[in-house]
Amino acid sequence: MPPVTTTPRIRKSPFYDATVAAGATTFTIYNKMFMPLSYGDLAAEYDRLINTVALWDVGCERQVELLGPDAGRLAQRLSARDLSGMQVGQGKYVAMCDHDGRLLNDPILMKLDEKRYWFSLADADMLLWCTAVGREGGFDADVSEPDVSPLAIQGPQAPALAADLFGDWIHDLKYFWFRETELNGIPLVLCRSGWSKQGGFELFLQDGAKGNELYEGIRAAGTRYGIGPGAPNHVERVESGLLSFGGDTTPDSNPFEAGMARYVDTATEVDYIGKAALERIVADGPKRLFTGLILEGEAPSPWPLAERTPIVAGGRQVGTLSAVVHSPRLGRTIGLAQIETALVESAATVEVKSPTGNLHALVHPLPFI
Amino acid sequence: MPPVTTTPRIRKSPFYDATVAAGATTFTIYNKMFMPLSYGDLAAEYDRLINTVALWDVGCERQVELLGPDAGRLAQRLSARDLSGMQVGQGKYVAMCDHDGRLLNDPILMKLDEKRYWFSLADADMLLWCTAVGREGGFDADVSEPDVSPLAIQGPQAPALAADLFGDWIHDLKYFWFRETELNGIPLVLCRSGWSKQGGFELFLQDGAKGNELYEGIRAAGTRYGIGPGAPNHVERVESGLLSFGGDTTPDSNPFEAGMARYVDTATEVDYIGKAALERIVADGPKRLFTGLILEGEAPSPWPLAERTPIVAGGRQVGTLSAVVHSPRLGRTIGLAQIETALVESAATVEVKSPTGNLHALVHPLPFI
Repeated sequence: MPPVTTTPRIRKSPFYDATVAAGATTFTIYNKMFMPLSYGDLAAEYDRLINTVALWDVGCERQVELLGPDAGRLAQRLSARDLSGMQVGQGKYVAMCDHDGRLLNDPILMKLDEKRYWFSLADADMLLWCTAVGREGGFDADVSEPDVSPLAIQGPQAPALAADLFGDWIHDLKYFWFRETELNGIPLVLCRSGWSKQGGFELFLQDGAKGNELYEGIRAAGTRYGIGPGAPNHVERVESGLLSFGGDTTPDSNPFEAGMARYVDTATEVDYIGKAALERIVADGPKRLFTGLILEGEAPSPWPLAERTPIVAGGRQVGTLSAVVHSPRLGRTIGLAQIETALVESAATVEVKSPTGNLHALVHPLPFI
Repeated sequence: MPPVTTTPRIRKSPFYDATVAAGATTFTIYNKMFMPLSYGDLAAEYDRLINTVALWDVGCERQVELLGPDAGRLAQRLSARDLSGMQVGQGKYVAMCDHDGRLLNDPILMKLDEKRYWFSLADADMLLWCTAVGREGGFDADVSEPDVSPLAIQGPQAPALAADLFGDWIHDLKYFWFRETELNGIPLVLCRSGWSKQGGFELFLQDGAKGNELYEGIRAAGTRYGIGPGAPNHVERVESGLLSFGGDTTPDSNPFEAGMARYVDTATEVDYIGKAALERIVADGPKRLFTGLILEGEAPSPWPLAERTPIVAGGRQVGTLSAVVHSPRLGRTIGLAQIETALVESAATVEVKSPTGNLHALVHPLPFI
């Protein structure tokens, strides 16, 4: 793991000091911020997420806010999904695409009120995209990055902890829905969301000066549930088939190649950037699909892929592997890949290059669990 | 220095393997790529840059290409500088601004032919900005990131090395001018440029598969000049007053606050994004300026700033320090800062917080050397 120098160009999240105090050992850089990825015991971090509750600094999940009379119209122009029925307090997983239908980001879009929306974003400077589209298109909406930084609690005990902190109303929140609230005077938006399939919430802190205070408050309240530090979990997310934008996708991926087909609306009256291109892709059929792979035997462990690895079949390259892990719950080595559509649809057998030689692998639908 | 995990989301440059073989010890993440920052001997790396020649992997300096009949018109729309006299083979340092005059990037714009331009960019996803402006504005130009990765040779022996490799014509290249050429069949663009004031060239490799071959070729040819590995040098760039976009600037900085006044054209016929806002800033006068600071005595060394540090005067904050180093050539501790205009213009004395207590500091014009 290469050491990375600190610099003002790469920001710390509002929870950074608390995560260092909690023993953060490795990081990634995401949206030009340090994000802790482990606290030195990956097995315990996985176990916590699956069985109790984990506390994640995901402050690097930045928001772009649209604010003004045209905010809704601009959100629609930027989203390859019909937003016409969207309600205040609702979030939706959306594909943001360019004019050729390429996937630019896979955020949660949150409607805070009729004139105020947030895109809660994966790793890319989408403020540039949203600003250019808004201003060049003459939309009456301010586009900015607000002082908003999510902290996540994830795992089966997360709802009990959230109920202790905020009240029993949290049980009525549907997935991706949210409410503006506060905790000991700290303003935040509580959303039923998070990058795992173990259930949980994201607390969108609205005052960057209070990050460590919020972190400590959640940690203390979670002690009775066995809370401990964690991070977006590479093993669980592969088991659950969750997309890592920019890791599982390439710059030319369209949303159909990223497993987002069910979130893209092409047969709709609304218009948005990339619609005509996406309609053509639907008509032609996507060339590749995002899929799972079950690898033969045990792969080298850990095997952190530093770059996408070729997948071959019949002597030619048919796709790329973007993640591979040992799944404790399946007792198998599994991976995520983009592979030619026909091979995915026929659940073909392919071959993956590994440090210990070629491995047979079987295409498997997502999620694994 | 926090260890950072490898992931396909963060790319390696075409020169990565060669830099690891050369002993790279620390990295930064820049445009979602690993960039080596040191090879374990900062004093030797500085000495090489000042006295002989250093070889830098700056592949993370990505290009955005504009290609098509409207490429020139689009380049102008994106650049706060009058490009009307620009010639093929010429590069210009330009400010890219948003509609409110905020600095989005400080690239070198290169005119490859009448229909083909490159922005050679600092750390931000400017492909998103350029694509949105181009497509939403109806410009007839393809906008893409080409397979182009710069490798730099910097230092007083760089011209002799470049002449050995490419011929004596390199002595006639003016600053920021370039020529398309090749080296042992490897296609590249040779430009007199680089992020130091010691002179040198950037070789814009046009085939990512040939990175290590190019690196080794340059290294071998440079042996007689004492070439060795290096990286954009934090000490030399502070001495020279070179801007680090995103480090020395904040999201609300305008180009006047970034030391770019002489590159911004407001009294001109041409139009571009942000022009009206920049004219207002000129009329009102910028509130802050980018400046040097000479600090009292010796500061803690090394003192890598992890975030911008407040500067105070008269009991209130008047600016922020974004870089501080010991200058071997000056024998002083010097820094870079954004400070209120009046204090810069009167060369005031201010105070900087340091790990060992407050330090007096004197405003000093840039460059130091």
